[in-house]
Formats: sequence, structure tokens, C-alpha cells
Amino acid sequence: MEFEITREYIDRLKELVEENNTDELKATMEPLHPADIAEVMDDLTMDEAKFIYLLLEGEKASDVLIEIPEQHRRRFLKVLPPELIASKFIEYMDSDDAADIMADLDEDMKQEVLKEIEDTEQAGDIVDLMEYEEDSAGGIMAKEMVSVNENWTVATCLKEISRQAEEVDEIYYIYVTDDQDRLKGVLSLKKLILNSTNTKISNLFEPDVISVRTSARQEEVAEMMDKYDLVAIPVIDGIGRLKGRITFDDVIDFVREEAERDYQMIAGIAGDVEPDDRAWELIRARFPWLLIGMIGGIMGALVLGSYETELSRVTELAFYIPLTMAMAGNVGVQSSSIVVQGIASGVKDVGATGKRLLKELTVAFTTASIFAVLIFIYNYFAQGNMDLTLSVSISLFIVMLYASFFGTLIPLLLHKLKVDPALATGPFITTMNDILGLFIYFVIGKMFFDIL
Amino acid sequence: MEFEITREYIDRLKELVEENNTDELKATMEPLHPADIAEVMDDLTMDEAKFIYLLLEGEKASDVLIEIPEQHRRRFLKVLPPELIASKFIEYMDSDDAADIMADLDEDMKQEVLKEIEDTEQAGDIVDLMEYEEDSAGGIMAKEMVSVNENWTVATCLKEISRQAEEVDEIYYIYVTDDQDRLKGVLSLKKLILNSTNTKISNLFEPDVISVRTSARQEEVAEMMDKYDLVAIPVIDGIGRLKGRITFDDVIDFVREEAERDYQMIAGIAGDVEPDDRAWELIRARFPWLLIGMIGGIMGALVLGSYETELSRVTELAFYIPLTMAMAGNVGVQSSSIVVQGIASGVKDVGATGKRLLKELTVAFTTASIFAVLIFIYNYFAQGNMDLTLSVSISLFIVMLYASFFGTLIPLLLHKLKVDPALATGPFITTMNDILGLFIYFVIGKMFFDIL
Repeated sequence: MEFEITREYIDRLKELVEENNTDELKATMEPLHPADIAEVMDDLTMDEAKFIYLLLEGEKASDVLIEIPEQHRRRFLKVLPPELIASKFIEYMDSDDAADIMADLDEDMKQEVLKEIEDTEQAGDIVDLMEYEEDSAGGIMAKEMVSVNENWTVATCLKEISRQAEEVDEIYYIYVTDDQDRLKGVLSLKKLILNSTNTKISNLFEPDVISVRTSARQEEVAEMMDKYDLVAIPVIDGIGRLKGRITFDDVIDFVREEAERDYQMIAGIAGDVEPDDRAWELIRARFPWLLIGMIGGIMGALVLGSYETELSRVTELAFYIPLTMAMAGNVGVQSSSIVVQGIASGVKDVGATGKRLLKELTVAFTTASIFAVLIFIYNYFAQGNMDLTLSVSISLFIVMLYASFFGTLIPLLLHKLKVDPALATGPFITTMNDILGLFIYFVIGKMFFDIL
Repeated sequence: MEFEITREYIDRLKELVEENNTDELKATMEPLHPADIAEVMDDLTMDEAKFIYLLLEGEKASDVLIEIPEQHRRRFLKVLPPELIASKFIEYMDSDDAADIMADLDEDMKQEVLKEIEDTEQAGDIVDLMEYEEDSAGGIMAKEMVSVNENWTVATCLKEISRQAEEVDEIYYIYVTDDQDRLKGVLSLKKLILNSTNTKISNLFEPDVISVRTSARQEEVAEMMDKYDLVAIPVIDGIGRLKGRITFDDVIDFVREEAERDYQMIAGIAGDVEPDDRAWELIRARFPWLLIGMIGGIMGALVLGSYETELSRVTELAFYIPLTMAMAGNVGVQSSSIVVQGIASGVKDVGATGKRLLKELTVAFTTASIFAVLIFIYNYFAQGNMDLTLSVSISLFIVMLYASFFGTLIPLLLHKLKVDPALATGPFITTMNDILGLFIYFVIGKMFFDIL
């Protein structure tokens, strides 16, 4: 059953560490899932966490390590000797997790740890995996999987699976290869069980197997696994040889991280922070976008300064600065976020810039007309200055039009330039639109009052 | 291998439909995955899509139906007779998918379809599932799974699994129950294969099985499956009886949807829209938040109007309206989004309002100080009015402080009140902060110039 971390439990652990009561500590942690132990460690001091961590043995120790958040893990690994890392963690891990851990180490440490790994097959797998780009299919796959030869019988397979399965936590699918190791198809454990032991594998397997190349980008892999509801996907090289497999848990993590990144971009937060992070990390994450906001504000002041004469002549002109800015900002964020989300969810033709801009213009034209009329009606009744009423409506219309246009165009352009389109959301588009919006507002306002 | 939809492929299909060439159409679609067929149908007209859809047979037809986006599926189902829905789709589906489809139908249709289902076990399962709340574990689980009795041997199990596995696409885990159907543990297929056929199940299964109650919220289920990297989780009732299981693909979809919803909230988009949606849907989705922005803008105009005397005396006061608004808006969105993301990712103690506000105040105080000093330095050199320089710095400091405070407090309050905290992000917090920010700015500006 699920385990709930309570204040009492943590206090009890702290006491036990204080008393150096290792037997009791081991007994307390025995029934916990590695993910729970990692969570408990998060509530302890670094020294306490290290103390209880070193009591863990074998596979449990390595499973817990994988569950510790990356930034803490790095600090943790720094204080441990290379032979301990090799013997206590790396040897027990799946190759993909081991390669992730290795990537956290600095170059010297990496070499030393590699030397200390006694299982040469594991060391070889890790070195292989480290060759791939970090965010490619090769970089996230694990070497552990179950594969069988197409010419075998069910009986041979079962024997071979028993052997291979030692290293593999969950089998999910059995991959079928030919003598050159090329992926030919896939077989479910279910089928294997339901057929007689002398059936040939070649008569059982499913030849239409969905696979990815080692060079495929992480996004592609996630998209395919999601689309086809796959719990694992085989990874092949350029000539179709089976190299590894990627499992659903990597994809869930990836989907979550991608979504968080886009969210933080639109919220104007730089880098991955959480409410639990320390204050200075939160400050650092907010600073860049606030600085952009401030520069935008200063530019706004300069725009307004250049219209000082008009402002001092017609004070009411200032009244609609907030309206102009609010609408420009909101429209810009709405437009850019729809494009960014479309790109993220892999909508086809998102690159068909012309067509998309045309539709966006229809939407913008309609919305801008509605709000221009609404503000006209409000101003017509609320205040007597007809020039102001007209110029506010007209400029709002134009500002909303151009804000939609830029909000759509800029992420599309960034995407074409292979830059993350999410950069164009949030504070960026708001700031840019604010300034241009103010400028348009004053150009039109000036026209009206000059004509007068 | 993966299938790529090309313009040519679609054109070819359209031609074949035109020619009424059903044999060729069937042959063309034969090798396609249901998800691909659904995608292809999306590129056809409603009539064309219906034509090719009705050529599909048995399980494939029902698999494709599940993959069609919900809004299209509803329109599709409306035009089909109940007996066809029952015999062509529902009978072949997993019970959770069938219940989802049933939820798309109106009440009369639902009853008629239920009557037409010949497989009474399936009909019973569907009725059972429809009893649960839609977003509870009971509402998303499937009844199809493999379960065995703890007193059986491996041999009995294998036989029973062969029988049960007919209905279950993927086994993943075998659940072990006692004579009262209560969940006792879990067994992997791997273990079953690796042990001799006369071993008793009670000696093999893993008793520490992580499960959820039928009443658990969808969020909880997703969190647990993600935390413990589970490919499937068993669902039990109040007295521990095994009722169904939830698989990873439901969770990936849920995680994705949740993230999209939060993103659209902060972007000021009401409801689920995509760039491919029709123009009027996009307009409707944007309208509510723009209206809020406009009301905010009008309130801003009223605030400024009440300081007309000051504005006409000191025109420069208007220059820093954009700065005040930009900073208030950005700080507010940053603060609220960090809280919302914290709540979404299940950070503990997020409800510890006092502690969180205190930390947020530290962050806010530091950030506000930095930017107050920066704008002071800029203004000191850029322009001669010392009163303005001072009042802008001081008001910026106060505005940033309160914007952080509200940005943090409001989502926390909403969360306590069981309202979606994401409502407090984006246009909502920006608009509120803009107005209050302007007010503070003028109160302080007036003080400085009145003293003068």
C-alpha cells in the first residue's frame, strides 16, 4: 500500500540517526519503496540523509539514487569515492540510469568510476550509451531488454528469456531478431505462454513492429509512444540492428518536463524552480524576465516622453494607456501560446505560415472589431470628448490587430529558425507589444488632436 | 515501421472513395495502425471519413473510434444506429473505452445501445463503470485484467491466464486475490515463467502491491503511477476487493491534458483550443479574458482620471505608468505560476500558507530592492526631476512587494477553497495587479508632489 510520510516518521528517523541505531533504522526502511526513501531523505539534513543512505544495500541503494532529484544527487555523488559509486550503484543499475548518473560526474571522476566497474558488459554498455546525444533515442534507451532469434522455438525462447530476464526488471515485449541482429518483429509474453513449446517463433511474432532510430529526437519518441500507446519501443541503428529499448516511464517524465518548461517560459521564469527551492534560486529565476520588463518600461517612458506636448495639452490621453497595454499584452500572449501549444502537440502544417497567419488575422479582425465597438460605446456614454472616444477605439483596433499578428508570427519564425518558440511567449511578447502598442496609440491620438 | 501521412496518400484515398473502389480502399488501409487511420480520417471530409470508416471491420473499427478526437467522435456517433454502435464498437472494446464512448451518447441512445449489446458480461461491466464519478479511479479503470487465486499453482494459473488473456490486450501484471476477491498481491509474468508448474502462487507473489481505491481522484492515481513507475495499477473497493486496473496510457493522456489546461489558463485562453480549430472557436476561447482585460483597462482609466489634476500639473508622472504596469504584471504572474506548478506537482506543505508567504516575501523584498535601485540609478542620470526619481523608485518597490504577495496568496486561497488555483494566473492576476499598481503609484506620486 501507499506510504504516507508523516512529521512523526521523520522525527523518529532523526532520533534514530542521532542515537546511531542502525539496526532499527534498517528495519524501519525495509518495507519502503525506493521512491519513498528518496522522498524521506529530502526532509532530512544532508548528513542525516547520507547516514541513512549508506545503510541501504545493493539494488535498493541504486534504485534510491535514481529517485533523488538531480541537483541533490550531484552534491551527493561528489562526496563519495569512485569505487563505492561503481560497486554500490552502477553495477546494479539499468544501463540507461547508469549512463545518466555518469553524466552527472565530472570527466576525471567518470574515468575512475568506469575503471572500477567489475562487470565488463555493463561498463561496455555504459560507454556505448554515452556516445549518443543526450536527447536522442540512443541517449535515453536502455540496453537491457529481452530479444530472441526468429529461428528458435518457444522452448528455446523460454530458456533464453529466463537467462536474460535476470537483468531486466520488466519484460513488456520480446523482440525478435534475425542472425544479423536486425529487428524483425515483436512477440508478447502472452503469445509465448499460450502456444505449445515446439512452435517456431517465426510463426508467432508480429512483423509490424513500431521502432525508432537511435538518432530520433526525444520529442519524436514521446509522440510515437503516446500515439500508439506503447509501453516500450525498440531502438534500431541505421541498418536496422536492435540496439536497445525505451520504456514508458522515461516518456512520462519527458512529457511532464516539456510541459513545465513551456509553462515557466510563459510565466517568465528562467530555469526549473519549485516553491521548495531556496530563496536565492527563486530570485535568480525571476530576474532575467523582470529586467526585460523593466527595460520595456523604460522604453515606454521614452515613447511617452516624446509625446509630452500632446500629453500636457490633453491629459485624458494618459487615461487609456493601461487599456492599450492590457489589451496588447493579453492578445499577444493568447496568440503566441496557441502557436506554441500547437507546435508542442505536433499539429501538422504548423509550418504553413501563410495559411495560419491568414486565419489568425480573421480571428484578430473579428475580436479587435468587437472590442473597438465595446470601448466606443463605453466612452461615448462615459465621457464627452468625441475625439478621444474615436481615437481610443481606432487605436485599440489597430493595436489588437498587430498584437495578434506578431504573437502568431514570432513563435512561427523562431520555430523555423530552430529556436524554441516558447521563448516568444509571456514577458517577451507582452513587453514588445506594450511598447509598440503605446506608440500606435499616441500616433493615432496625435493625429486626431492635431487635426482638431 | 512508422507511417507518414502524405498529401499523395490522402489524394489517392479521396480518389478511391470517389470511384467507390472498396476493395482497393480496404487493401490500402489494411497495414495501417488504428491511430494512423484516425489521423487520415481527420484529413478527409465527413462523408469520405464515414465511407472509409464503415469499411473497417471488428476490432479495428472500434480501435479507430477510440482514437478519433472526442468532438468529431460525437458527431460521428450521432448518425449511426444504436445496434451498429453496439455490435460494431462496444462489443470489441475494453470496458473503460466502451464506458467513455457511452458517456458521449445522450440518455435515450445510451439505453438503446445497452439493450443491443449481446455480450451480457460486457454490458454489465459498462453499467458498473458508468456508476463511478468520471474523474475518479473507478471512472477511468478498465475491468479487463488478469487475476488469479492465491491458492492456485503455476500450472492452474497458466491455464486460467490463457482463458482470461483472450480479452486482455496486454497483461503487464497478474493480480493475486483471495477467495473473497480481495487483492493480496501481484505477480509478474516473468516470475510465472521462471518457476516450475507445481509451485504454489502463494509462494511466488509480491505482497507489497501498490493500489488505489475506486474513489481516488485521477490526480492521485497519476501521481502514484508516476512516482512508482507503474505500467498499471490495481483498483480496489472499500473492503479491498479487486475491481479493475488503470494502465499507463490513461495516465500519459491525463498528465498531458492537465498541463495543457494550466497552460491555457495562464495564457488567457478559455477552453481547449488548437491552432487547427475553426476561427469562431478561437474567438470564443479568447473573448472572456480579453473582456476582463478591457474592464481592467477601463478601471485603470478611472484611477488615472481621479488623478487628473496631478497628471496635468506633472505630465512626467504619466511616463512611468508602463513601467509600473509591466513590473506589477510580470511579478504577479511569476509568483502565482510558481504556486500553481507547486500544487500541480504535488509539492508537500503547499498548504503551509504562512511559511510560503514568508519566503515569498523574502524573495519579493530582495527583487523589489534591486529593481528600485536600478530604476533610481537610471532616472538619476536620465532626467533631472528628483521628486519623480524618488517617487518612481519607492512606488516600484511597494508595487513589486504587493504584487508578489497577492500573486502567491490568491492561488493558495483558491486551492484552500477547492477552486482551481490556475484561475489566479495569467490575465486575472495581471489585470488586478495593474489597477492596484497604478493606484499605489499615484498615491505615492501625489504625496511627493504635494509635499513639494
